[in-house]
Amino acid sequence: MKFRIQSNIFSEGINNVSRALSTKTPMPILKSIKIDLNEEGIYLTASDSTITIKQFMPTFIDNKQTIFIEELGSAAVPGRLLLEVLRKANDDYIEINMYEDKYIKINFKNSDFTLNCLDVMEYPNIDLIDSNEPIEFDSVKFEQIIKQTVISVSTHESRPILTGVNIKSNENKLYCISTDSYRLSEKIVELETPIPNINIVIPGKSLLDLEKLLLTNRGKLQIHIASNIVSFKIKNITFQSRLLDGNFPETSRLIPKEFGLQLVFNRIELIDVVDRVSLLSKEGANNIINLDIYDEKTIISLDSPEIGKVVEDITPLSQEGSLMRIGFNSKYFLDALKVLNEEKVTIKFTGEVRPFIIRTNDEFVTQLILPVRIE
Amino acid sequence: MKFRIQSNIFSEGINNVSRALSTKTPMPILKSIKIDLNEEGIYLTASDSTITIKQFMPTFIDNKQTIFIEELGSAAVPGRLLLEVLRKANDDYIEINMYEDKYIKINFKNSDFTLNCLDVMEYPNIDLIDSNEPIEFDSVKFEQIIKQTVISVSTHESRPILTGVNIKSNENKLYCISTDSYRLSEKIVELETPIPNINIVIPGKSLLDLEKLLLTNRGKLQIHIASNIVSFKIKNITFQSRLLDGNFPETSRLIPKEFGLQLVFNRIELIDVVDRVSLLSKEGANNIINLDIYDEKTIISLDSPEIGKVVEDITPLSQEGSLMRIGFNSKYFLDALKVLNEEKVTIKFTGEVRPFIIRTNDEFVTQLILPVRIE
Repeated sequence: MKFRIQSNIFSEGINNVSRALSTKTPMPILKSIKIDLNEEGIYLTASDSTITIKQFMPTFIDNKQTIFIEELGSAAVPGRLLLEVLRKANDDYIEINMYEDKYIKINFKNSDFTLNCLDVMEYPNIDLIDSNEPIEFDSVKFEQIIKQTVISVSTHESRPILTGVNIKSNENKLYCISTDSYRLSEKIVELETPIPNINIVIPGKSLLDLEKLLLTNRGKLQIHIASNIVSFKIKNITFQSRLLDGNFPETSRLIPKEFGLQLVFNRIELIDVVDRVSLLSKEGANNIINLDIYDEKTIISLDSPEIGKVVEDITPLSQEGSLMRIGFNSKYFLDALKVLNEEKVTIKFTGEVRPFIIRTNDEFVTQLILPVRIE
Repeated sequence: MKFRIQSNIFSEGINNVSRALSTKTPMPILKSIKIDLNEEGIYLTASDSTITIKQFMPTFIDNKQTIFIEELGSAAVPGRLLLEVLRKANDDYIEINMYEDKYIKINFKNSDFTLNCLDVMEYPNIDLIDSNEPIEFDSVKFEQIIKQTVISVSTHESRPILTGVNIKSNENKLYCISTDSYRLSEKIVELETPIPNINIVIPGKSLLDLEKLLLTNRGKLQIHIASNIVSFKIKNITFQSRLLDGNFPETSRLIPKEFGLQLVFNRIELIDVVDRVSLLSKEGANNIINLDIYDEKTIISLDSPEIGKVVEDITPLSQEGSLMRIGFNSKYFLDALKVLNEEKVTIKFTGEVRPFIIRTNDEFVTQLILPVRIE
């Protein structure tokens, strides 16, 4: 394998796939990025066995040649090191030259790197799935779905199915739901065309990795689903993840429909108040904040006997309903408030020990929190 | 104790002294900041028992009242928490009110914090030293002294005296020296007026803390020295540190005076090359780079059998002397190159296993590195 390539293009590709590189793995080969060079261009592959990212870089872009091929072939190159070398490369072009099937030479300007490579034949064969009927999204819209649901994913392995986001279809709607059983996030997306029935659970960690990839790669996103795999395609990049096995709990009845008390706040102002009040939860164990909702204003407080206490008040923009006292985890509340986008936010309560929900004008997003019983 | 104070002034003071707060300490009281309020103003004190920072904030600044006193007194307030509360304060003034000798109330806008305090009587009595003949410096000049010497301080406790920077006077010169026995930094400062004989060793860690404090507090710096304590005064802030006990080794004969080979490089270009070559040392054990110095150019290389190897060449701006091969720790070399300021840097060699030095036009700064024997 021997080729010369525009360095910014190569760096960008290596950077994209490197997000799937395994840091701790029983398979050393998964610390490598696989490079496959054929006449059409280069395929880069990295995988940590849960997710796989593959990128194709064509020889010609807009009729302009970006890769100059001398000899076809494949290599498994130490991923992190390759990434770092390319970050410090100070030339417009990079020359890659594999020799003796175990060394790769990287040349630019006055630099001459030789990296030891593992046997590319050891690299696991990872099939990329494809389907005839992908779901299509604007990638920015899908970033929002991830951002607004992934907060409620469980981080405990006791119920593995809850560590993922459930995505299921119903006619022309897609329901994206996560819950760690203390809180729940739901985002409903209306699709322009009906899609086949799906009901999958994508690991939360995979979605966070995908979110980072989408931040620098925007455009039309295709989602392909197979029995235990989901594959996201954007531009020349494929991001594939294992799905979680098992039945995601039915959550539709958890979200209350009627509310005795509703408060509208300026979202940023509310975040500031809860953020300050939460200061006293950082160092201590107690992260339960209390809301005392009066007619004219709401008192937000936190009492952490070992550290101290804090009381703030905030005036709602509008309010329907009467006096109530409710306590809940301040972190859940902050997470939910921060992933919403609108200026105003509505908190809807049904009772002191019943779940309450947080909504904005965008009725397709619901954040739900289960309160704790307070004296 | 009860007072109201301009919040930016209070925050700045708390932020300054908080650099001395102890994170892990057998004395819980040292996690507090001591606040003493008298008619003239407020004294803030924090200490980790090696360093102490004390700041005075006067009641009037330029005839403008910034502190409004209701009741004098003292308190020991949880330091980190106070700092965080002030960072999030959204008002021009802060009200502080101590009650029952164990709670402190912090009020601003709609916020009402109550923090549990320890008994201020438990706070250790820390005397600040003073001398009639302080050494005076422009603080920015002293920042340079720290930056250019602290790199060579030892991080091993096997020879505690080497974990500090030796500062000694000789007539109207001040010699600032550090060495971990593999490298050495020396900065000589010419003083305008002769000073009394001094020969002290300041802990490197203390100097790093002082450097951070000086970054945001610049002006005339006074240095007061007592038998086992040094005290730096800038504006209304006193930074005091314990000195290290013991005799700092005599180093003057270590720095060679005659050189058979001298190379001048563009400093930034050389840093870039060594930085890239060092990539291969990051993941592996070998951080020894080799310089092969030929007539026309210098080859810089690193061979890390398990990872790979890298070869770069760089052309010196000028050169005196002939062929040589020398190997040394790339990190030491980078540290030394980075703390110098000039555009050009001169490397002066006397032999393959003899220490070499790095200098710029500023002859008062010398960085020395001991090479390793290479085959």
